[in-house]
Amino acid sequence: MNNIKVVKAEQLKSKPDANSLGFGKYFTDHMLVMDYSADQQWHDLRIVPYGPISLDPSAMVFHYGQEVFEGMKAYKTADGNISLFRPDMNLKRLNASCERISIPQVDPEVLLEGIVQLVNLEREWIPEGEESSLYIRPFIIATEACLGVRAAKEYKLLVILSPVGSYYPEGIHPVSIYVEDQYVRAVRGGTGMAKTSGNYASGIKAQEAAKQDGYSQVLWLDGVEKKYIEEVGSMNVFFKIGGEIITPALTGSILAGITRDSVIALLASWGIPVVERQISVEELFEAARQGVLEEAFGTGTAAVISPIGTMKWENEQISIAGGQTGEWSKKLYDSITGIQKGERDDHLGWRHTIS
Amino acid sequence: MNNIKVVKAEQLKSKPDANSLGFGKYFTDHMLVMDYSADQQWHDLRIVPYGPISLDPSAMVFHYGQEVFEGMKAYKTADGNISLFRPDMNLKRLNASCERISIPQVDPEVLLEGIVQLVNLEREWIPEGEESSLYIRPFIIATEACLGVRAAKEYKLLVILSPVGSYYPEGIHPVSIYVEDQYVRAVRGGTGMAKTSGNYASGIKAQEAAKQDGYSQVLWLDGVEKKYIEEVGSMNVFFKIGGEIITPALTGSILAGITRDSVIALLASWGIPVVERQISVEELFEAARQGVLEEAFGTGTAAVISPIGTMKWENEQISIAGGQTGEWSKKLYDSITGIQKGERDDHLGWRHTIS
Ligand SMILES: Cc1ncc(COP(=O)(O)O)c(C=O)c1O
Ligand SMILES: Cc1ncc(COP(=O)(O)O)c(C=O)c1O
Repeated sequence: MNNIKVVKAEQLKSKPDANSLGFGKYFTDHMLVMDYSADQQWHDLRIVPYGPISLDPSAMVFHYGQEVFEGMKAYKTADGNISLFRPDMNLKRLNASCERISIPQVDPEVLLEGIVQLVNLEREWIPEGEESSLYIRPFIIATEACLGVRAAKEYKLLVILSPVGSYYPEGIHPVSIYVEDQYVRAVRGGTGMAKTSGNYASGIKAQEAAKQDGYSQVLWLDGVEKKYIEEVGSMNVFFKIGGEIITPALTGSILAGITRDSVIALLASWGIPVVERQISVEELFEAARQGVLEEAFGTGTAAVISPIGTMKWENEQISIAGGQTGEWSKKLYDSITGIQKGERDDHLGWRHTIS
Repeated sequence: MNNIKVVKAEQLKSKPDANSLGFGKYFTDHMLVMDYSADQQWHDLRIVPYGPISLDPSAMVFHYGQEVFEGMKAYKTADGNISLFRPDMNLKRLNASCERISIPQVDPEVLLEGIVQLVNLEREWIPEGEESSLYIRPFIIATEACLGVRAAKEYKLLVILSPVGSYYPEGIHPVSIYVEDQYVRAVRGGTGMAKTSGNYASGIKAQEAAKQDGYSQVLWLDGVEKKYIEEVGSMNVFFKIGGEIITPALTGSILAGITRDSVIALLASWGIPVVERQISVEELFEAARQGVLEEAFGTGTAAVISPIGTMKWENEQISIAGGQTGEWSKKLYDSITGIQKGERDDHLGWRHTIS
């Protein structure tokens, strides 16, 4: 595995200003690529200069959406090392997504080694700033040139890297959420548990409408009864009600977030159980009316923890934790980012250090 | 509109053998392209040599599935002309799909004129054979290079053409269908009414499993109750029960097929009403048990009419019309293909002749 072919870029890009990184706008000098054909299976893992992909217009990805992706981050740690956060979980989920979309499985060890080598090559790109990081985007697309609705026989896997700024340039702060009761992101039996493009396309319209009305994210309800809480935008969601921390159970239409898993494990390590169960939006709003909805927050790789300050459902708007960042949101945010950045003890063994 | 820029291919491909065309395997010498940017809106409609699309790896289409497509056909008619079949309907549906996926609307007249000019340029590619045709695939992809889950600010529209053989080389014949009760294609509030990639990706797994078990297509049930019949593979579906012709109503998760619409209109023109309503799979199987399920067929651009000979649901398998092509399947197939090919009177004004 130390024989990944590397073709170096002839000219390196100048690095963007650390204060205007944003999210997913800039990309590094190289990318990781691997091809799949029915004959050779996954083959020819290589690092090449970052550059355009050239595909036949009939490539299946342009028509039938056979594509999956992942999102994770590399951090510069306090001791000058580079670390990834639980990359094994991302690669496991990538294969789970592949399984749902009929894309051939990838060897997670081979891919992780490729990612490590790529990140190492691009280490100068990892931003130094507080809470900034190098976002890692592995994705697989069906490249076979044929207009048939079936599993493709050819695929391309790519990993691209993007330096990203702090999600909270002015410090962690709460967002406002709109409970979507018309459009549906995913349904049991569909693709909601997979990180695949169609789930995101289906969410854009509701997301844009919520933005228009001044809300920063949409809260998705289940597709069957439009009653149970699923996710918030591209995040899982947690609530503290009457002292108990609750998150929607993974019933098949919800993405199994790695931050979600980390929050549950971290709280457990502190002796605090998290209840995974169905939560109806009515129950949530009733708790708010009774004054026992103490906290709400989203979890995801991009923001880590995103406290929820207000929530609108039908004609009712509730304020949570007085519109402030709640105690647990703050504690979890500090702990997880602390572990990621190597500033806190990694007692759960989550850092994957690149030496 | 007569000023579409045309860049001719320097070398023309040799045409494939008319007997091995299949579906969507060969493409003509040119394609139609148009670009969208926030500044210029849709612009630069042009015909260029068929060739690869080059996109940044972060192009949104590879990640968040903002893509829609259409499918229609051009025929060589008996009098030597070329005709399209109800292209206005396809372009209207393209815009409906765009609306759902937050892609900017396309001027249907401009696009139709472009398609007509492209088909005219490629007229030698239209196969002569009985029931063969030139398949037209317009599609739009989000090309903006940014990893943000939102509507893109840049898109590309392409139209590619593929000569396709008869769907039934040995004459129209019935298919076997598997009623899928685990996986779901689409749900109300989702994207089922749009021709967008995610709907197809979500269906591949069930489709492959059905193929494995010897069934040629999957019958999709509604995502909420898994009880009501929606579509068959990539086709709408009709049943004749006790003398009455019935098709699932368009409740939001079903694609509004143009062949479906044509079947309803044609039957109406013959004085035969079609009932559009919810049909449960239980009702259907009960009708079969009682001996009053007289016929079943799928409708779609590819096969036009696809008679259904057998259907499997849970542990029960039914045979329909003795496993033969039913009377109405045959009559509708002959009529619609006859109108398409210019062999029958176009009393509903569906042929769009390219002079
Ligand atoms: C739909 C959706 N839900 C939840 C998450 C959170 O997952 P993770 O914590 O692994 O980033 C994501 C990805 O970020 C997502 O796209
Ligand atoms: C999901 C789906 N349903 C139905 C149809 C039939 O539509 P049409 O008759 O317009 O081809 C299609 C497309 O062919 C389809 O993709």
